[in-house]
Amino acid sequence: MSTHTLKAFDADLEELARMVAEMGGLAEKEIADSIMALARRDLDLAQRVIALDPTVDSLQRAIEEKAILTIARRQPMAIDLREIVGSLRVSNDLERIGDHAKNIAKRVLALDADIAFSQVIRGVEEMTKLVLAQVKQVLDAYASRDVAKALEVWRRDEEVDAVNNSLFRELLTYMMEDPRNITSCTHLLFCTQNVERMGDHATNIAETVYYMVEGQPIAEERPKGESTASFTAVLARG
Amino acid sequence: MSTHTLKAFDADLEELARMVAEMGGLAEKEIADSIMALARRDLDLAQRVIALDPTVDSLQRAIEEKAILTIARRQPMAIDLREIVGSLRVSNDLERIGDHAKNIAKRVLALDADIAFSQVIRGVEEMTKLVLAQVKQVLDAYASRDVAKALEVWRRDEEVDAVNNSLFRELLTYMMEDPRNITSCTHLLFCTQNVERMGDHATNIAETVYYMVEGQPIAEERPKGESTASFTAVLARG
Repeated sequence: MSTHTLKAFDADLEELARMVAEMGGLAEKEIADSIMALARRDLDLAQRVIALDPTVDSLQRAIEEKAILTIARRQPMAIDLREIVGSLRVSNDLERIGDHAKNIAKRVLALDADIAFSQVIRGVEEMTKLVLAQVKQVLDAYASRDVAKALEVWRRDEEVDAVNNSLFRELLTYMMEDPRNITSCTHLLFCTQNVERMGDHATNIAETVYYMVEGQPIAEERPKGESTASFTAVLARG
Repeated sequence: MSTHTLKAFDADLEELARMVAEMGGLAEKEIADSIMALARRDLDLAQRVIALDPTVDSLQRAIEEKAILTIARRQPMAIDLREIVGSLRVSNDLERIGDHAKNIAKRVLALDADIAFSQVIRGVEEMTKLVLAQVKQVLDAYASRDVAKALEVWRRDEEVDAVNNSLFRELLTYMMEDPRNITSCTHLLFCTQNVERMGDHATNIAETVYYMVEGQPIAEERPKGESTASFTAVLARG
């Protein structure tokens, strides 16, 4: 590339990084707000999370457009191409994180204001804090191309799965204790499921950071906790 | 572009279309097999659905790589660029459809072999048939760049939502009738949720077809059925 083209290309890359960082900030806000809305049964805040989601979606489209045009105009090779593909993948995962936050916010609107399960809700809050920390760290790792930091996130997803499983058991128990708990607990089950999926996207982003820097996928097997789908009829019989 | 480059570019586009069609075929198979596994509680088939998913994922990566390299090498403009972006978006949605099928297959492994809810399961089968028809039609629309067909799919998502809501109500009722139903019904709730999401991805693909042909997003508002998240405490009180 000529010096001029190189400069223009660097500016494109910087702009892409800035857009991904902006999207990351919005996704973090959506996570934090959706769970605060749940904890406080704050319907206004839930509505604001839902209203924010189209902005996150358009940012993803804008990143896609910018990435594709940059590739078409500058014809980058190898490592630079991986940078751009990385921004596409990360923005895709951030969009999905935003979707999960929106799903939680919708469940908040559906929940009774006076539901009792404060212990479960605290559990969901704890789990969300874990996931939010994962998202923050992996976005840091992305911004600084820090493979070691990304791998830490990738390996730590197990903890989120463990909390999810204990909440799943707890919610089923409440449902069995009193049928009047069933509707609310079902909504809470879907909330925990959404938080768990956000965690999965944090690990996807970790994989993307690894790929961007190393040029290949992570070779090791990820430690994976038991999923709630592996609960058979233990509780139903208990 | 020179005649040579044009020919090479056409070959690239054809190869991309072929890969997306292959991926679409696999996604359709995953949908049909996951639901057959559920209907027959066929654990082997469920395992095969789970085992197929990495193939779908690598196909998505291959499409991404091919798309990006085609853009970098051929520097297409406007309509051709939209073709390539379209293949990226469609493969992304197909990958997610595959994930949902895998999730259903995992729930099949978790379900009791002798669960009774044959009526609900027939309902889930019906809903899945609707969604599979949507996926088939939208992949046809994609292959033939048929905007009218794509819009039909896009408008018909409402029906899937309606079936989902009636299954949601039915499952909650079973859970309230007998606490021993709760674990199985929870797994079935997650199954219906996954089927509903597959339907959402069919509508996303419809939007992509529209964008590819028209160069802009669909302007009209999509008819949207009530979501299960909008169920408040009606049933809990009933």
